[in-house]
Amino acid sequence: MERVKARTLSGFMELLPQKQKQFDRVREILEKTYSLYGFTGLDTPVIESSEVLLAKAGGETEKQIYRFTKGDSDLSLRFDLTVPLAKYVALHYNELSFPFRRYQIGKVYRGERAQRGRFREFYQADIDVIGDGKLDIINEAEIPAIIYQTFTALGLNRFRIRINNRKILNGFYAILHWDHRAADIMRVVDKLEKIGAEKVGLMLHDDLGLDQDAVGEIVKFISIRGSNQEVLDALREYQGQNETFDLGLSELETVAKYLDAFGVPQDHFAIDLTIARGLDYYTGTVYETVLLDHPEVGSVCSGGRYDNLAEYYTEKQLPGVGISIGLTRLFYVLEEQGLLNDDLPTAPADVLILPMTEDLSPAIAFATLCRAAGVRAQLYTEPKKFKAKMNYADKLSLPFVAFLGDDEVQKGAVSLKDMVSGEQVQVSLSEAPGWLKVRVDAKNQGAPIRE
Amino acid sequence: MERVKARTLSGFMELLPQKQKQFDRVREILEKTYSLYGFTGLDTPVIESSEVLLAKAGGETEKQIYRFTKGDSDLSLRFDLTVPLAKYVALHYNELSFPFRRYQIGKVYRGERAQRGRFREFYQADIDVIGDGKLDIINEAEIPAIIYQTFTALGLNRFRIRINNRKILNGFYAILHWDHRAADIMRVVDKLEKIGAEKVGLMLHDDLGLDQDAVGEIVKFISIRGSNQEVLDALREYQGQNETFDLGLSELETVAKYLDAFGVPQDHFAIDLTIARGLDYYTGTVYETVLLDHPEVGSVCSGGRYDNLAEYYTEKQLPGVGISIGLTRLFYVLEEQGLLNDDLPTAPADVLILPMTEDLSPAIAFATLCRAAGVRAQLYTEPKKFKAKMNYADKLSLPFVAFLGDDEVQKGAVSLKDMVSGEQVQVSLSEAPGWLKVRVDAKNQGAPIRE
Repeated sequence: MERVKARTLSGFMELLPQKQKQFDRVREILEKTYSLYGFTGLDTPVIESSEVLLAKAGGETEKQIYRFTKGDSDLSLRFDLTVPLAKYVALHYNELSFPFRRYQIGKVYRGERAQRGRFREFYQADIDVIGDGKLDIINEAEIPAIIYQTFTALGLNRFRIRINNRKILNGFYAILHWDHRAADIMRVVDKLEKIGAEKVGLMLHDDLGLDQDAVGEIVKFISIRGSNQEVLDALREYQGQNETFDLGLSELETVAKYLDAFGVPQDHFAIDLTIARGLDYYTGTVYETVLLDHPEVGSVCSGGRYDNLAEYYTEKQLPGVGISIGLTRLFYVLEEQGLLNDDLPTAPADVLILPMTEDLSPAIAFATLCRAAGVRAQLYTEPKKFKAKMNYADKLSLPFVAFLGDDEVQKGAVSLKDMVSGEQVQVSLSEAPGWLKVRVDAKNQGAPIRE
Repeated sequence: MERVKARTLSGFMELLPQKQKQFDRVREILEKTYSLYGFTGLDTPVIESSEVLLAKAGGETEKQIYRFTKGDSDLSLRFDLTVPLAKYVALHYNELSFPFRRYQIGKVYRGERAQRGRFREFYQADIDVIGDGKLDIINEAEIPAIIYQTFTALGLNRFRIRINNRKILNGFYAILHWDHRAADIMRVVDKLEKIGAEKVGLMLHDDLGLDQDAVGEIVKFISIRGSNQEVLDALREYQGQNETFDLGLSELETVAKYLDAFGVPQDHFAIDLTIARGLDYYTGTVYETVLLDHPEVGSVCSGGRYDNLAEYYTEKQLPGVGISIGLTRLFYVLEEQGLLNDDLPTAPADVLILPMTEDLSPAIAFATLCRAAGVRAQLYTEPKKFKAKMNYADKLSLPFVAFLGDDEVQKGAVSLKDMVSGEQVQVSLSEAPGWLKVRVDAKNQGAPIRE
């Protein structure tokens, strides 16, 4: 027979079972945390009409799209979860209640140049709160709490949520009378961390033609540092000159004020006047999250407040605030850095049941008992030598093995071996599932990430 | 601004939030049940190289494929989860341990003609056990238990698992010396339920040219009815004439023998000599599952034993047994038939928290307490009238509303209203999350389907 070489496309993450289990655990924690904050899960199609999906797109994004025709239809694979959300809210507007809070964890597609750590198929894990016409600032204040809770639940502690407010930036550039070049200025300021304040100043002057006064003011502004209180105090010096600035500052103060009540420690949160998150979409608070020990990774959870989610589909004004975690990339980084907690079980079953009698009924009945008790049980009946069976249990890291021989069957018991400690005990059939459940649950305690 | 009409492609299921919650609940039960039987979850890419994905395909399937080029690559969307499994096992053979038990619940794509209840993007929920060279018959005997447990956990009781064995059919046609036309004969016999035994006999004679003796034997064979014991007894009459037949009968006896130990009631299981499940892939036990009150739906869970999972990719002999649930279609049918249990909560949160004080800190702190206790809490801070807020809670079917006014804040308490009973009580802040948790858990008891 002619054979085809089995392969998986480059840029597509395909995990071995044990890694997949670790991935799924991370994913479950995101789902659970998002749910605790009252977000409802959505699952929109991977394929959309190109006309709908690309209503807004252009430039770099459009080039990366997986776009094709099927019959008469011009179709595209979604490249993020925001555009499908905009479509969903516009389409189902009359059936939804606002504020509408949804999470979605799903695969998106971008035909990027293949390179290490870059994926063409990857999961995004998004939450958004959408208002109808208006949306209260408290929703923006709640986002850092959700980020904090999510990362903490994963087992991370060495991270910081950075926030800024676009109204402050826009207002500040208006005070300088350079608001007509605000987008270009922000693009330069965005390089601050890479090139330093001096070079940013040079670029603003040489490339954008800003006068030395303006450059000086900008460099002074983006150099504002200190505790959140100190940054807010410094910002108050600019108050009273521009309405947008003042509104932004008041929003930022509200966000900072409620941190304690939301349970976010001050040291996991920093006001950072240098972040802007893209050019024309965000209009209020913006968020980034950095791993303190891995700044090279960039932001692992970003987002912000926007005024118009679905303007390409509806005249309805739908403001919102949202964040996105690039789950596939985050998992890749955590794995590369050796941060995954390998002590948590990744085996497909909690117990491997080895029948040692010709009639398999007792072993099968025991497997049925285990499953009824919530213990994941696998029957192993392949006609192999004992050593091969134990090797199998070892290779899969199965935590327990159960032996059912004539002796056990006669006594109504089962022999249970802890594959880590090597300890072996005989337990009555009725008590064995409970015996296993307690121990299995104990092994499953702990977060999927260990710093 | 030029606007695009928001729409979702026909044949793509996109659910409103409450329905999505019901769908997710069904999906979670499949995942959980599959896990209890020791299957590990996989997540392979949606896109594969066409050369790999279509190594075997042809005819009707190939026409339905979503196939396109991106750069130099000829790509296709997966149309089932079996071919990606075959690729996975061939590719990762050296890193897997056999028997390899995996489940996968994922979207697959088929460009079928759009019609009611037919989907172009739909979930399949598969399990397979793959052996290396050999695979014990007990794996085939366990499958009915998994089907039974899965459907029972969903809340279904009015279903029956039908099984047959391809070796019995192949052996029987060999006894008649018509094994060279076995595939054609099975295709005709497959119509039995629709057209009756008489017409099947006519077609076998007129269309396939079988002599009257053979037709008579076949009609007699497929008319074998009765309890499992009676069918097995009838089959024993044919014993001793053909090795394949005898092997198939012995396999069928083994599968039937262990039903009790596996916890499958006899009345949920029927040996049915008329089912064959496709023509050349299955080689042993085959399964179908029918909803007794909705036979028109056809089989909702099918599969069987095969000898060669990955022959298009590897010379390794990889026998296996697997079943697949068409989850999207099943959900569609359950919803159409009004079988979804609408008593289970579908709200995005368990409690809606309404602050009635200017300082929101007490309400926020209470939300934080609730979440820490595993109660899904949503803060509602939009500046709306009281009635509008209660309407919002009603529309989302939020089970509880919490009020925090000056009175409550002073007392360190919160007023909790049960939105179903209308009952309202004041509970101390520290006790309130527990008070809610108990009641929320109680509301979540029950299966997602109610017959």
